[in-house]
Amino acid sequence: MFEPWILAPISAVISILGGLYLYHYINKQDSGTKKMREISDAIREGANAFLKREYTILAAFVLVVAILLGIFLPEPIWTSKNLIGNLSRSLAYMFGAFCSALAGYFGMDVATRANAKAANGAREGLNKAFPIGFRGGAVMGLAVVGFSLLGLSIVYGVTRDPQIVLAFSFGASALALFAKAGGGIFTKTADISADLVGKVELGILEDDPRNPAVIADNVGDNVGDVAGMGADLADSYIASIVAVMILGQVLGQVEVPLIFAGLGAVASIIGVATVRVGKKGNPGRALNMGTYMTCILFAVLSYLVVSYLGIDLRIWGATLVGLAAGVIIGITSDYFTSIDRMPVLKTAETSKSGTALNIITGFSYGLHSVFPPLVGIGIAAAVAYFLCDPVGEGYAVFGVGMAALGMLSIVGMIVASDAYGPVVDNARGVAEQAGLGEEVIAVTDRLDAAGNTAKAITKGFAIGAAGLTVLALLAAYREIAQNVLNRPVDFSLMNPMVLLGCFIGIAIPPVFSAMVMLGVGKNADRMIAEIRRQFREIPGLKEGKEGVKPDYARCVDIATVGALKELLPASTLAIVATLAVGFLGGIEALGGYLAGSIFSGLLFALLMSNAGGLWDNAKKYIEAGALGGKGSEAHKAAVVGDTVGDPFKDTAGPSLNTLICVMSLVASLFAALIAQNNLLTLLGL
Amino acid sequence: MFEPWILAPISAVISILGGLYLYHYINKQDSGTKKMREISDAIREGANAFLKREYTILAAFVLVVAILLGIFLPEPIWTSKNLIGNLSRSLAYMFGAFCSALAGYFGMDVATRANAKAANGAREGLNKAFPIGFRGGAVMGLAVVGFSLLGLSIVYGVTRDPQIVLAFSFGASALALFAKAGGGIFTKTADISADLVGKVELGILEDDPRNPAVIADNVGDNVGDVAGMGADLADSYIASIVAVMILGQVLGQVEVPLIFAGLGAVASIIGVATVRVGKKGNPGRALNMGTYMTCILFAVLSYLVVSYLGIDLRIWGATLVGLAAGVIIGITSDYFTSIDRMPVLKTAETSKSGTALNIITGFSYGLHSVFPPLVGIGIAAAVAYFLCDPVGEGYAVFGVGMAALGMLSIVGMIVASDAYGPVVDNARGVAEQAGLGEEVIAVTDRLDAAGNTAKAITKGFAIGAAGLTVLALLAAYREIAQNVLNRPVDFSLMNPMVLLGCFIGIAIPPVFSAMVMLGVGKNADRMIAEIRRQFREIPGLKEGKEGVKPDYARCVDIATVGALKELLPASTLAIVATLAVGFLGGIEALGGYLAGSIFSGLLFALLMSNAGGLWDNAKKYIEAGALGGKGSEAHKAAVVGDTVGDPFKDTAGPSLNTLICVMSLVASLFAALIAQNNLLTLLGL
Repeated sequence: MFEPWILAPISAVISILGGLYLYHYINKQDSGTKKMREISDAIREGANAFLKREYTILAAFVLVVAILLGIFLPEPIWTSKNLIGNLSRSLAYMFGAFCSALAGYFGMDVATRANAKAANGAREGLNKAFPIGFRGGAVMGLAVVGFSLLGLSIVYGVTRDPQIVLAFSFGASALALFAKAGGGIFTKTADISADLVGKVELGILEDDPRNPAVIADNVGDNVGDVAGMGADLADSYIASIVAVMILGQVLGQVEVPLIFAGLGAVASIIGVATVRVGKKGNPGRALNMGTYMTCILFAVLSYLVVSYLGIDLRIWGATLVGLAAGVIIGITSDYFTSIDRMPVLKTAETSKSGTALNIITGFSYGLHSVFPPLVGIGIAAAVAYFLCDPVGEGYAVFGVGMAALGMLSIVGMIVASDAYGPVVDNARGVAEQAGLGEEVIAVTDRLDAAGNTAKAITKGFAIGAAGLTVLALLAAYREIAQNVLNRPVDFSLMNPMVLLGCFIGIAIPPVFSAMVMLGVGKNADRMIAEIRRQFREIPGLKEGKEGVKPDYARCVDIATVGALKELLPASTLAIVATLAVGFLGGIEALGGYLAGSIFSGLLFALLMSNAGGLWDNAKKYIEAGALGGKGSEAHKAAVVGDTVGDPFKDTAGPSLNTLICVMSLVASLFAALIAQNNLLTLLGL
Repeated sequence: MFEPWILAPISAVISILGGLYLYHYINKQDSGTKKMREISDAIREGANAFLKREYTILAAFVLVVAILLGIFLPEPIWTSKNLIGNLSRSLAYMFGAFCSALAGYFGMDVATRANAKAANGAREGLNKAFPIGFRGGAVMGLAVVGFSLLGLSIVYGVTRDPQIVLAFSFGASALALFAKAGGGIFTKTADISADLVGKVELGILEDDPRNPAVIADNVGDNVGDVAGMGADLADSYIASIVAVMILGQVLGQVEVPLIFAGLGAVASIIGVATVRVGKKGNPGRALNMGTYMTCILFAVLSYLVVSYLGIDLRIWGATLVGLAAGVIIGITSDYFTSIDRMPVLKTAETSKSGTALNIITGFSYGLHSVFPPLVGIGIAAAVAYFLCDPVGEGYAVFGVGMAALGMLSIVGMIVASDAYGPVVDNARGVAEQAGLGEEVIAVTDRLDAAGNTAKAITKGFAIGAAGLTVLALLAAYREIAQNVLNRPVDFSLMNPMVLLGCFIGIAIPPVFSAMVMLGVGKNADRMIAEIRRQFREIPGLKEGKEGVKPDYARCVDIATVGALKELLPASTLAIVATLAVGFLGGIEALGGYLAGSIFSGLLFALLMSNAGGLWDNAKKYIEAGALGGKGSEAHKAAVVGDTVGDPFKDTAGPSLNTLICVMSLVASLFAALIAQNNLLTLLGL
């Protein structure tokens, strides 16, 4: 018998097949000269070494958490009458982590293959290079959608229980947190260490192959931008579907989000297929047109299906609200980080008066930049709420979830545009290192610039989607608590427990950010010691003797292990604090805590990402020749600003989305247990 | 007939008399050599020029707002049947601004007199200099308490209407915002401009009298630290009393806060009188002992009075919760900025690896530092709530207000300890410039160090008190709305309007911070032009010809006018946004907005103040000889960190307390009008 939600796994399988097709397309392309192949191979080997090491450590971590989940959820096994329930949560969690890891692996692998091929394509022209770069990114996009949606569908199909799908989502998010924040620590560790020993101590060039950290540095870009961004969006994607499933349960709409997700996947595949550019075309426009096309396709497709299935059109409207909000947030945020807009220009200009003014000005514009997206998320949520409110009781909050889902439905296309960036950025690096000449580099430059144009919108989607998703998760958390307690649950700011929870929750994202940023410094210390050791102990390395190679893998390994080591206390803190607030303060305190963490999490995610991007572009603006150009005092100041911005935008900022998602999922998973067993209940309050 | 609340105006008058006594004591002291007198006079003249200019501009502003209030509140005059109500709000507002201005004037005047006298005292020893410094600060403390409490009592005595006292509080807060944020822009403008033209362009020393900005620079310290801090605490003090009066109205306890405030004033006067130090004594310990003594006195006195009047002991308990929280928050926050603790030491150490690492590390510890105070405020509110809950309905929230009031009851002593700091800091400057010799400077150094010790606790009080006060104001706002609407009002995070309000509210403090920090840069541009003009156009100035003096007053004037000009858009934004959210979104949206602004306001106030203090001390630590000392690479990095921290800790950070207080007061003042006239009501929603 055909059930409409089967659309989800079918679309997921098509996505995976589409991804495989593009994977083969990429593999068929020529990687160019021997030199180009060597560079590309080294990066891929480094990336694989990173992933292998990361996944090995994470496997142990996932296993430990899986056992803990199995012991305690939905009830501690010593009181549980439903041991299958415990086991299935445990398995679903591991499966979620596995699916996320698989998508990350495919995406990274193809992205690190595509760089040299895109560079080689650039020798024949823009219209040859562009599809290689885009399809290299699209594999990641389709893999994210495919594996996420297929895994989720399997868990739901087997158990028919959204609570167990929640465990699947937690697995995917936990892995995303490690990929994103761990990758963030890794990439900055490698960057700082390579520069400090190479450029500063020994005076060798940035990409000198004698430097043992050079591969780690190149790997870092892919780790953070491809695998990290993919995992981040995958995590929001899955979480939004689960949240809406839980909200839809009581309304008999549990399968509606799956239908929409399936339609979004179909729209993304078609959207990806339509992206192309002529010989004189504008690749940035092509990417954005692809996104708009996917949006329209989704709107039309879902309208037809919704009409056919007799689902209320207001629900369809809520998804469109989300889509529109994503685009608008993207466009407005872009203003603050664009190289040709006032914030970047002013920041560059104040660099003439010294480093301190560069930093104060950039930071101030970063503070400004939080306004449009925060208000945008708030308005999108409110519009979706009021739109769906007339449908019936419970539909208003369901609508907020649907807005999140709508924004994320086209995640395949979004990830594809986004992952295109690092692929062509690396292609430019390969072209330069392999000496392909100015004309080819000019082509890769144009490809690279298009990546930045596309990033504006995709970044807006990522933050907007995260915001709406965690709001939906907050509602899902309340829903679960209400079902267990059999009474209405509300998070009123005039309730002192909610307020206390809020104050604690607000403090968690800043403390987490501080821990990971300080972790970069500690990890860099270890890596610097290793680089110095290699230069000291490997004979002929410093002198550049023929055939003498540094031990790249060891540097990758040290940075990887160190990154996870630094991340572990921060992640543990976030999870333990969530459980502590819940078990000590009860359901209401935990609700306030989640809300507080959402508020400050989004605030700092925006501030840090945008300030970091702005400093980066202010430096690039000066390097392009303005205000005295490279080597001027203004340039020196801008370089410091850029370095300050690096851990902001690459380590702390982007991890916060995932952090608040993980915290919300933990709360929802444990909501039933907390509702019945917490200090307040024990004390009879 | 004797009513117990008369205690408040009586204590206020005693405070003012005490302040006048100390004022004469200070005036009787010898100001030392001619040179010392000259320096001191120049600073006082500059400060007076600043205040005169500031008050002239503000008088116009206050008048405009007073007229607007008179037209619109409590009802627009064209519908109002109670024109006396409109007029009295208008007058109360102006009176509040006047009282705050008066306290600021007295405090500044005596602080700028006491510096040379304290320096002269230091020639005879610590036990001679210390009381001059402390009593110089104490005039400000007693003036703040006296004028605030007397003014408030007069308004209440005449009108018996807490709603009109609210207008008085708004007047005081509006002035405080200008004193604090305007002073903050002024001081950094002067600092940056003096350095840039003097030290960098002309290579003359920091305090060279040829520099036209040198007096403005010295004035800046007094403006920010004495007048600003005093206004800040006065504003929280008055607001907390008013908030509790409104919460107590329905409980028949409207005069209880006045009684407690009066007792606190008495405790402060005695506390101030007991502070003394022996020849070999420890001045830091003496200051803190004075604070503890005042706390104990307040606890005992209020216990006796509460028992005598038959007020519930739980209410007394709530005030003690507030007092204890203030001390604890102060001590824990101190850890992050102390020169001998890990955060400062680590930040100093990373300076060896460059400027960027100094900034990232300091910022990270600043992020860490928000945790203890935020959680402390949350716990204090919750404890006070649950403590007073059994007293009866409505008493729980009343208890939260009483905790704020308890913390602020000893505000006289707190401001005294705090204003001591800049007095002795200036005394050190006078001693150095007048060449009083190493021994005397060593004495002033010890006095100065004591100021920093005391500041740890007073800063904790300021932020804790602001946090609890705005929570009490939020409750008062709800109370007013409930009375008008005659239905329960709640701020549930699951209400989309509350949530939307929250998202907007969260964004206001960062945007305000950005505006004032960017304002410093713009203002500095104007001032730099003036300094250059004077060097160019005044013959003999650059060469230091005998008898040629720069036009100090003009620099002070330009910095003052510019500071207010930069501040105006930011303050207007905050007030207009508050009204816009209220009139467009209604009572619930405005409640969420206030909560959001409280959350992010406290967060950024803590982050910026602590990170700034930490960078400052990291620099001082290196200047004391560690890590290569002055002139080393580490020192250069730490200087940049300190410069970044300056607008954080002196301009934006400390203004945020006042900002959220002003926003909360605006909301409460307009609550009744908004409840009846907003877009939602008009649309029939």
